Amino acid sequence: MLPIGSFNPDSESPLYRQLYTQVRDLIESGSIARGARLPATRELAGQLGLNRTTVSAAYELLESEGLITGHVGRGSFVADVPAAGGGIEWRELLGPAAPVSPAAPTSTPVAGFSSSRPSEHLFPMEEFRSTCAEVIQSAEAQTILQLGSPSGYPPLRRYLLDLARAEGLARDSDDILITSGCQQAFDLLQRTLVRKGETVLIEDPVYLGVKNAFERGGARLIGVPVGANGIDIEALERMVARERPRLLSITSNFQNPTGATIPMASRQALLRITQAAGVIVVENDIYGALVYEGEAIAPIKKLDASGDTVLLRSFSKLAFPGLRVGWVIGPRALIASLTEAKLWSDLHTDQLSQAVLLRFAESGRLEHHRQRMLQAGRERLHAVLSACEKYLPREAKYTRPRGGMSLWVTLPEPLDAGELLARAEREGVTYLPGKYFSVSRPQPNSLRISFAGMTPDRIRSGIEILGRIFEDELARVRSHSTLADTPAMV
Amino acid sequence: MLPIGSFNPDSESPLYRQLYTQVRDLIESGSIARGARLPATRELAGQLGLNRTTVSAAYELLESEGLITGHVGRGSFVADVPAAGGGIEWRELLGPAAPVSPAAPTSTPVAGFSSSRPSEHLFPMEEFRSTCAEVIQSAEAQTILQLGSPSGYPPLRRYLLDLARAEGLARDSDDILITSGCQQAFDLLQRTLVRKGETVLIEDPVYLGVKNAFERGGARLIGVPVGANGIDIEALERMVARERPRLLSITSNFQNPTGATIPMASRQALLRITQAAGVIVVENDIYGALVYEGEAIAPIKKLDASGDTVLLRSFSKLAFPGLRVGWVIGPRALIASLTEAKLWSDLHTDQLSQAVLLRFAESGRLEHHRQRMLQAGRERLHAVLSACEKYLPREAKYTRPRGGMSLWVTLPEPLDAGELLARAEREGVTYLPGKYFSVSRPQPNSLRISFAGMTPDRIRSGIEILGRIFEDELARVRSHSTLADTPAMV
Repeated sequence: MLPIGSFNPDSESPLYRQLYTQVRDLIESGSIARGARLPATRELAGQLGLNRTTVSAAYELLESEGLITGHVGRGSFVADVPAAGGGIEWRELLGPAAPVSPAAPTSTPVAGFSSSRPSEHLFPMEEFRSTCAEVIQSAEAQTILQLGSPSGYPPLRRYLLDLARAEGLARDSDDILITSGCQQAFDLLQRTLVRKGETVLIEDPVYLGVKNAFERGGARLIGVPVGANGIDIEALERMVARERPRLLSITSNFQNPTGATIPMASRQALLRITQAAGVIVVENDIYGALVYEGEAIAPIKKLDASGDTVLLRSFSKLAFPGLRVGWVIGPRALIASLTEAKLWSDLHTDQLSQAVLLRFAESGRLEHHRQRMLQAGRERLHAVLSACEKYLPREAKYTRPRGGMSLWVTLPEPLDAGELLARAEREGVTYLPGKYFSVSRPQPNSLRISFAGMTPDRIRSGIEILGRIFEDELARVRSHSTLADTPAMV
Repeated sequence: MLPIGSFNPDSESPLYRQLYTQVRDLIESGSIARGARLPATRELAGQLGLNRTTVSAAYELLESEGLITGHVGRGSFVADVPAAGGGIEWRELLGPAAPVSPAAPTSTPVAGFSSSRPSEHLFPMEEFRSTCAEVIQSAEAQTILQLGSPSGYPPLRRYLLDLARAEGLARDSDDILITSGCQQAFDLLQRTLVRKGETVLIEDPVYLGVKNAFERGGARLIGVPVGANGIDIEALERMVARERPRLLSITSNFQNPTGATIPMASRQALLRITQAAGVIVVENDIYGALVYEGEAIAPIKKLDASGDTVLLRSFSKLAFPGLRVGWVIGPRALIASLTEAKLWSDLHTDQLSQAVLLRFAESGRLEHHRQRMLQAGRERLHAVLSACEKYLPREAKYTRPRGGMSLWVTLPEPLDAGELLARAEREGVTYLPGKYFSVSRPQPNSLRISFAGMTPDRIRSGIEILGRIFEDELARVRSHSTLADTPAMV
């Protein structure tokens, strides 16, 4: 039996990381021999009273660092050679290995609110199969498999650009680049437009991928507060005047993580402010097609008479996230520069997926699928909002999006969503605490609930568990503070 | 009729760019009205005595800059709005639009020697279709379409890593990352290992994609000469001592553009030199599976007892270049850092293509296809070498690879392969002149012949035409210099 000590449920560090640290120390100190077999995840979970997914996450982290190796059907073993074998001091050169994101538990028995993606159970598999069959049987199949263009698969570019022109989203002065998803669009924009040290305004809170894409390029990031009504226009105006940014990255609809949509008046104000100051607007609109209730608001790109706004869209929230296809629409000179950056980044976007998604869209199957996604999304949105109403502490606040995939919960202080996560995970519920989205305003009492991947039943059960955990904690801290406020008996 | 002036066939600038410049000037000066229809490519080619592909290339460049717009079935028109419409001075901000590579003619009537890629006529379409059908019908299809891991599709990672271990190419201290082709592997290595201004040794001549990947990251590039016997080991030793590079990028087999393979003794010497100096070796081995004659030599990664060598491989030269899947094998700490860089570059590599290529490999179809590729490659290599022997000027030198896709021709001085390209294009033959591959040693009299995409007949016809052009030019310059050497009659 492994000599594992006790855990601190109130620590900043989640349980799986606490377990990881203990096992790592045992390996590095030699307390567990090289080559020794570790207990199975189920066995160790039982011994320690932990959820099995917590143990799996710790083992995955150990394996990713080369400290243990897994063999299917045989179990996990302590690696019998040091992780770095040679003359290059890799660890010293590269710095400490950082886990790239919170390790996702391999399964979530009750409800996984931590990933903003569609449920694979909603994938229209038969329609996908027919689409694929049509593409691979077509006369173009040979061309699709041959080396392609950095700009994208020409028929897909034409289809998307024509569509954008018909919707008033692309002008004659605009062009299009197909990217390997929206993440790559951010990366190429950063490389092309932002020199080291230049200022970029991003939303605060914001999706980690947007923040990291700009931060890795050496940009100076300033967060503009986002609330239930979208970006704070007064703050934006002040920051534009004071910080002289090169670029503003903004999500017009159902922002990740808040779920907020920018009202029409704010969109117009945003355009006035940025245009007067010569700030480039990058409009991230990957959730815009997922309006469950009410009417869609015109994208900023459409309202922008100057044509300078850069619009990002993607198939990955609507259709199949495993196929990495997004696109950028913007002024021709910018698209030419982005295309050059794309060429030297990865030559071009995978062409099989481009052709399959084109066929999926052209055949009308995408729109058919979207209608089913909207129906499911409506039910899930309704479920999450009623469950929040019913189960969250009365003092909790949460956004009420009309579409998209996430909403933002703010717990009464001094509750800390990061600290409470370990407890939620033990009960089979996950979410992402506010700290993963913060730019400069820490919101330790906030969390993101991504509801789109869960059935209404799971949503209700998950929010009920969270509500109970939050209520318990609230009662606990209140009883403490009540005691603390009581004068000592003398 | 357009008022187009005469062309300079001896100019540095290829014909299509000369035509582009003339039409652009006519548009910008207002000599051709906005909205006016341009002559069809066939018509203008006839008028000017140019090849139609030259006119198409010029029109494509004009269109990419927004000066003209094409409408299928209606022709090309001068754009009726300025390319940049708004308040942002895009051209000023981004600098002049650079064509990302020499514009590829849309068709090559005789022989296109300019692209190092397999012929699409060799793609095993029926086997590809069966593979796809198996993947999309499988129980994993839903998982494949869902968001994946930045490390790559787990079953593909496992398959490739197990294979590499079995071949002695990966140690226990190694790990693997799936990339969107080898180009992305270079981009991630540059981002992870090379800080601005640090020195990187690359081959000279070298494939433009390698040079650009490092150059865009701000590396200081030093070219190590590559000849018919691969990298010049003595020069490498001097440069390592003098320049203190962080990294050496090297192609062990059938280097692009020279076709050179590094002999075993040089591989061992290279390892001794780099290890003594702590230089990271990145071994690009994308052509290594294409040995048409003789035996393969062990990769540097296999010879490296330290385990520090970083190995890049890809499916794209062997199977389907339109599916963007390559991989990096290297020390675990490095792979962890590269994976983080990958995550914020594009989340993960397209999963449909990863799954299809895994199935293609696992089912034995890849090896079956490789055997046919080797047979075709052998015939093509034989054809190109005998045609060079027969048709090129006696004084020309060329490499004699035993595999891969390219060879390197060095013409007698003062012939300039860049200047002669326009003449070759007029006769329906293309190639890439040496200047596209130069790091610091201009080789204006060299050119790359990529033979793998052409049938033996086309190869012979193409080399025959090139031979005649080169002989003619040689005769012309010799008759000139003979005159020049004659004393003036007085």
